[in-house]
Amino acid sequence: MQADSIDANALRSGTLTRSLARFVAGTQWRDLPANVRNEAKRSLVNYFAVALAGSNDPTLDKAVHVYQRFRADESASIVGRSERTDMLNAAALNAMSANVYDFDDTHIPTIIHPTAPVAAALFALAESRSMSGEALLLAFVLGVEVECRIGNAVSPEHYQRGWHITSTCGVFGAAAAVAKALELDEQHIAWALGNASVQTGGLVETLGTMSKSISVGNAARNGLLSALLAEDGFSGPDAPLEGERGFLRVAASQPVWSALTQELGHEWELLKNTYKPYPCGVVLNPVIDACLDLRRDARWSLADIEQIELTGHPLLRERTDRPGVRTGRESQVSAQHAVAVVLSRGEAGLDEFTDAAVADPSLRALGSRLRFIDNASWPVESAQVTIVLRSGERVEHRVHAARGSLAAPLANVELADKLHQLAAYSRSGVDAQALIDRLWKFETEQNAAAVMGLARAHGSD
Amino acid sequence: MQADSIDANALRSGTLTRSLARFVAGTQWRDLPANVRNEAKRSLVNYFAVALAGSNDPTLDKAVHVYQRFRADESASIVGRSERTDMLNAAALNAMSANVYDFDDTHIPTIIHPTAPVAAALFALAESRSMSGEALLLAFVLGVEVECRIGNAVSPEHYQRGWHITSTCGVFGAAAAVAKALELDEQHIAWALGNASVQTGGLVETLGTMSKSISVGNAARNGLLSALLAEDGFSGPDAPLEGERGFLRVAASQPVWSALTQELGHEWELLKNTYKPYPCGVVLNPVIDACLDLRRDARWSLADIEQIELTGHPLLRERTDRPGVRTGRESQVSAQHAVAVVLSRGEAGLDEFTDAAVADPSLRALGSRLRFIDNASWPVESAQVTIVLRSGERVEHRVHAARGSLAAPLANVELADKLHQLAAYSRSGVDAQALIDRLWKFETEQNAAAVMGLARAHGSD
Repeated sequence: MQADSIDANALRSGTLTRSLARFVAGTQWRDLPANVRNEAKRSLVNYFAVALAGSNDPTLDKAVHVYQRFRADESASIVGRSERTDMLNAAALNAMSANVYDFDDTHIPTIIHPTAPVAAALFALAESRSMSGEALLLAFVLGVEVECRIGNAVSPEHYQRGWHITSTCGVFGAAAAVAKALELDEQHIAWALGNASVQTGGLVETLGTMSKSISVGNAARNGLLSALLAEDGFSGPDAPLEGERGFLRVAASQPVWSALTQELGHEWELLKNTYKPYPCGVVLNPVIDACLDLRRDARWSLADIEQIELTGHPLLRERTDRPGVRTGRESQVSAQHAVAVVLSRGEAGLDEFTDAAVADPSLRALGSRLRFIDNASWPVESAQVTIVLRSGERVEHRVHAARGSLAAPLANVELADKLHQLAAYSRSGVDAQALIDRLWKFETEQNAAAVMGLARAHGSD
Repeated sequence: MQADSIDANALRSGTLTRSLARFVAGTQWRDLPANVRNEAKRSLVNYFAVALAGSNDPTLDKAVHVYQRFRADESASIVGRSERTDMLNAAALNAMSANVYDFDDTHIPTIIHPTAPVAAALFALAESRSMSGEALLLAFVLGVEVECRIGNAVSPEHYQRGWHITSTCGVFGAAAAVAKALELDEQHIAWALGNASVQTGGLVETLGTMSKSISVGNAARNGLLSALLAEDGFSGPDAPLEGERGFLRVAASQPVWSALTQELGHEWELLKNTYKPYPCGVVLNPVIDACLDLRRDARWSLADIEQIELTGHPLLRERTDRPGVRTGRESQVSAQHAVAVVLSRGEAGLDEFTDAAVADPSLRALGSRLRFIDNASWPVESAQVTIVLRSGERVEHRVHAARGSLAAPLANVELADKLHQLAAYSRSGVDAQALIDRLWKFETEQNAAAVMGLARAHGSD
């Protein structure tokens, strides 16, 4: 706070909330740089890919069963499913789907998964209130900007303490995005943020359990509700973010006030967004890259392997040295499982990280041959896998920047391929290519909601 | 934590959540002492009184307008209003009504308003799933026990930091209560608490604004939802409360672990509940008592008053020295306004703390004659008001324990009177006496929901 240029008066008077609200109200499509517009579309392609993947997970089946008892109408679609529901439920359920495998995007400075809460809220609204693709993209960019700047202001303490930052900051992003889509003015956008500020639940303790999905769904649903209430004149405090008892101070002991507004409109948080090539903890990305490469050129067979050496930043070992995992969910953060399954199958998709995959005794045996070698001078985006054969021969592959990192972003064609694969995984019958084609030219779409017609399943309920 | 008898193993393994869940699952009506049963009914009488009072506040009008766009059915009632709505909306809206004026009950150790989230969730459920008055009272007592013990474990830091503790702990109370009413077993009750643990929003910054009501409503709604999800097998973490990234550690830097389970089933949090006689900050209670007494025996007229001396604990001055208030809401915490309006009118009801009352220039003039005298040796439940007349004569009244404090609890007849007055204030047409009669013998009620038929308005929508 001392190092910060924001003074006490600004904090008391609500200047920061006001500045953010004014920025959201005033920014137009023409103000967005081309690379930001492009990244928004890439985020949406990734969003539909992961939402399709998650749409039939048992967590979603149960949530749909209960939430559908409380649907007011059938105005909205659920990605990858055939049921119809109301706007608030659709926002919740689609955000859940997109995030349930933690296979969605990652804003590097905060590790927020930014798209799920914001996009789910916007598309749910779009199915009731007509808006163009351009209007939705603009609202999306601004929502992510608000969400991630609030995240920056409370990081890293907030997540480290145990708050599930995608949930706690996502609700602000959804509120700001929907407020923009509703064309609210500065005052009403500030109220939307105030209404969001009382709905910031979510705990890291619940990762890997169904409970986590409730708060991710709430971020979308309650952000949407916050803006609808504000539109109706439901008013909030002047300084929900920076006030004496506002969100930033409860969320972190030393908030970085300037993160909210510094370079606003000049630096864009969406450009710090990344997309996962594999459904795993992000530190495993270079490991999987290396294993895929080793397997591709293999002149050895699995039976020849004596030992596997994994060299990387100590964080890699700390996060992923998990030899005895029992569930598919745990296997997503196990180097032993990841190395074994990728060397064995030459694939690293959702099927490789299931309960069934984990139960394979040959993978356990292979994984037990793994040995970690720490090298604190390497960045976390890098890793080396060395296979030591029974003959004594060593075969190694080093990855300097993992696929999907900011230094080696997934290409558009790779994102499209991810959507194809996950659409197939979902068995929803969704025409992936048609969806992809519409998304790449989404700014020309007259009716943003048309995309939801392509993303939902058309079977009987 | 050092001073605490709970060890690290217990925290990791989910022992505390389990103990609470087992207590909720195992406790029967026969286990409740008579004074606890009685206090539950007193809490409900107070609940319906304040819910009637708040039912037509502009905050409620706006919330009903938006929430009704998302009602799935008309299975549930809204206290003091004629609209019907679904179970989740009813839980939210009735909790909002009961708390909107902060005229509801206060659990002294935490300043949680315990009843609004728990009772609103239970009655909403009762309108769809038949339960007896006895079953509802039992679930209510257990919900309040869980809610307030979690509050005890994170107090006083949690509220002081800026978390609106009624909202953040209320969701656990509602979840536990509904889980009990649904007759869930220990495992499912623990899941309900896990599902609640990700829905703990609410900020002190929003007090006095409409936004506050959202989180109080959410506490009831989301607690109910948490239990319904758990009933359907929607599962949570082992240790949502005491885990490394669980609620208690994010909510307070040094949680009092033992507060969760110490003397469980022997000490009852509901016995620390109090009810406000006036719609004001609780420190003003003895001041208003004194003014009412002075006015009752008055041999002076307002024009004779030269000065008013207010003697009390310094906290009284710190919280209520607000000479220039502009809104009814602010006047609820202004000693100047409270003293002036009560000496002038001899009343201290909701009508005395409105925007209109504040605008009366004669009250402002009288309030400006107030002078505070600190006496740090007095308890906060006490105060003395001295009127200094132009003649030089001094008329004083000292109150040792304010009405409504734990030392001088409101009598049943006073609670009934509060319900009568607030029912009249609501202009809902509710038959207050019929409602009171049913509540005092609520444990004999076959159908708990019948009370909601008496508490709702029967006009056209």
